[in-house]
Amino acid sequence: MSPDKILLSHGSGGKATHHLITQTLLKRLANPILNQLADSALLPYEKKLGFTTDSFVVSPLRFPGGDIGKLSICGTVNDLVMIGAVPEYISLALIIEEGLDYAVLEDIADSVAETARHAGVWVVTGDVKVVEKGAADKIFITTCGIGRIVKNRPLSVKNIEPGDRVIISGTIAEHGLAILAKRKDLGLGFNIKSDCAALSGMIIPVLKKTGNIKFMRDPTRGGLATTLNEIAASGGLGIIIDEARIPLSPKVRAACELLGLDPLYLANEGKALLVVAEKGAEKVLTLLRRHPLGRNAREIGTVVKKPSKQVVLNTVVGTPRIIDMLVGESLPRIC
Amino acid sequence: MSPDKILLSHGSGGKATHHLITQTLLKRLANPILNQLADSALLPYEKKLGFTTDSFVVSPLRFPGGDIGKLSICGTVNDLVMIGAVPEYISLALIIEEGLDYAVLEDIADSVAETARHAGVWVVTGDVKVVEKGAADKIFITTCGIGRIVKNRPLSVKNIEPGDRVIISGTIAEHGLAILAKRKDLGLGFNIKSDCAALSGMIIPVLKKTGNIKFMRDPTRGGLATTLNEIAASGGLGIIIDEARIPLSPKVRAACELLGLDPLYLANEGKALLVVAEKGAEKVLTLLRRHPLGRNAREIGTVVKKPSKQVVLNTVVGTPRIIDMLVGESLPRIC
Repeated sequence: MSPDKILLSHGSGGKATHHLITQTLLKRLANPILNQLADSALLPYEKKLGFTTDSFVVSPLRFPGGDIGKLSICGTVNDLVMIGAVPEYISLALIIEEGLDYAVLEDIADSVAETARHAGVWVVTGDVKVVEKGAADKIFITTCGIGRIVKNRPLSVKNIEPGDRVIISGTIAEHGLAILAKRKDLGLGFNIKSDCAALSGMIIPVLKKTGNIKFMRDPTRGGLATTLNEIAASGGLGIIIDEARIPLSPKVRAACELLGLDPLYLANEGKALLVVAEKGAEKVLTLLRRHPLGRNAREIGTVVKKPSKQVVLNTVVGTPRIIDMLVGESLPRIC
Repeated sequence: MSPDKILLSHGSGGKATHHLITQTLLKRLANPILNQLADSALLPYEKKLGFTTDSFVVSPLRFPGGDIGKLSICGTVNDLVMIGAVPEYISLALIIEEGLDYAVLEDIADSVAETARHAGVWVVTGDVKVVEKGAADKIFITTCGIGRIVKNRPLSVKNIEPGDRVIISGTIAEHGLAILAKRKDLGLGFNIKSDCAALSGMIIPVLKKTGNIKFMRDPTRGGLATTLNEIAASGGLGIIIDEARIPLSPKVRAACELLGLDPLYLANEGKALLVVAEKGAEKVLTLLRRHPLGRNAREIGTVVKKPSKQVVLNTVVGTPRIIDMLVGESLPRIC
């Protein structure tokens, strides 16, 4: 029997912690490595690895299309996929506020387990801390991920050259808008769902079938505009984007117009931005579109030598506009 | 120029985040892997690996003998060492409360960097989230660690047999007592310092020089009593401990008597509990004592077949006492 509320004793390292770990987490996440409940997980690896971490502090915990548990697996899985690694092992560290409904934790653990199963990863080690009421907001989750690099060929921004094509794997701005609508109780009537999804199933097969992908990144916080700017800045190149080609669902377009929001700066949690050699762009698009998550994949732009380190948007009205990184904060705690 | 306060925009993923990462973290933690600021770190590994995570929510952030930054590296380094892994790569995820003094973050980053250097590990990937004022208490840190297993021989509780000796690497209860004294402003006049330390320098050479260590664990939350119970329970064996042999500094003994606290349940952050084959116990003790952190190492008990899954303390007054895991919470947020 689990108690109704998370108590301070759930973070004490004693019996209540043991109960929480075995009854709430291990029961859902069991695998031969995690089952050992050792302080560290032993990974039977012999290849180059990807290793990543992300904390998740999303508010509200549950939103249309996902929750913090799903997000904490997808986010880390996607970070691995973006450097060309096949996600395999995940660590899960929870910071929980005293007084959280135990059922909320169970729902989150269910969601973590289901998402991990779906993404083909194992949670192999973890930690639980509980802080006093008011010292955290319900629950924060930090995951780490480890994955083997596909064909020992990690992707790098250094591979990018003028002429390369920029591809986005689907419609943008859905996660940011879903969180905003839910949080502000906007009652838009648009019913916009977060795109929160693990990208391994879509991306890894493409990576294995073509050598033409040069770099990838998932446009999360700061949106597509910020990610494009990061690529332009670190690659020392320019990027020209064709606004008319950016895939946007009619709902999202309508909501953004109504609210005066720029979808280019809204977060995505299930999209990949790919930079691909010109000759391989068509094949990559075809492969992406074979997967349900990639049906709306589009080529949206081109890498150019100049203007260096800038992103230029050719707008639908025909004028070019320089788009910058996100300045200030748009919407805190979207992930 | 860094600003005075952490703002919500430091967690936005935009320019302020970039500034925080490059100016505050990367400047202190630079290495060829982290410098790439990719979403994941690429690890050039070919051996069996240890992988661990821990969140740190200690309050106060700074205490005699350490701070949350030092703790967040030592804790994860020690978890790796305990399974027989040489710690090499660390991830660092920060959840920061809006309004935190920027100087506090800089001090913590200094401490992380110094401790990592001292322990011979690289922080290779990380994340920063900022939550609104009141949604977290100043700062929480989650680290993950990866390390290569020494000689491909991971330690396991399954190796433990009756007759094995139990060794503690030094005096106990210092971390728990230091936090308690600082937090309650007890003004004990004892000036007790936390034992917070990375154990790799002491333990790894011993592991390499002897095959007699069967299992190790660091007795953190829940103290020595809880850790001994975990070993007895998962090994299906009993442990007899001789109270008179447990190393305790005079200061800690006096403070515990004054406050009515049992040092067996107070946390340690720089001690290892080792289970060693009888024939190797003397050699392991000799090797431990060569290192400054192991000068007070003592053999404190023996593994027995029965009473199974129990820990019996032969007290200084001559009576045996069964000691259980910590029940309830002793002192929240000690790590």
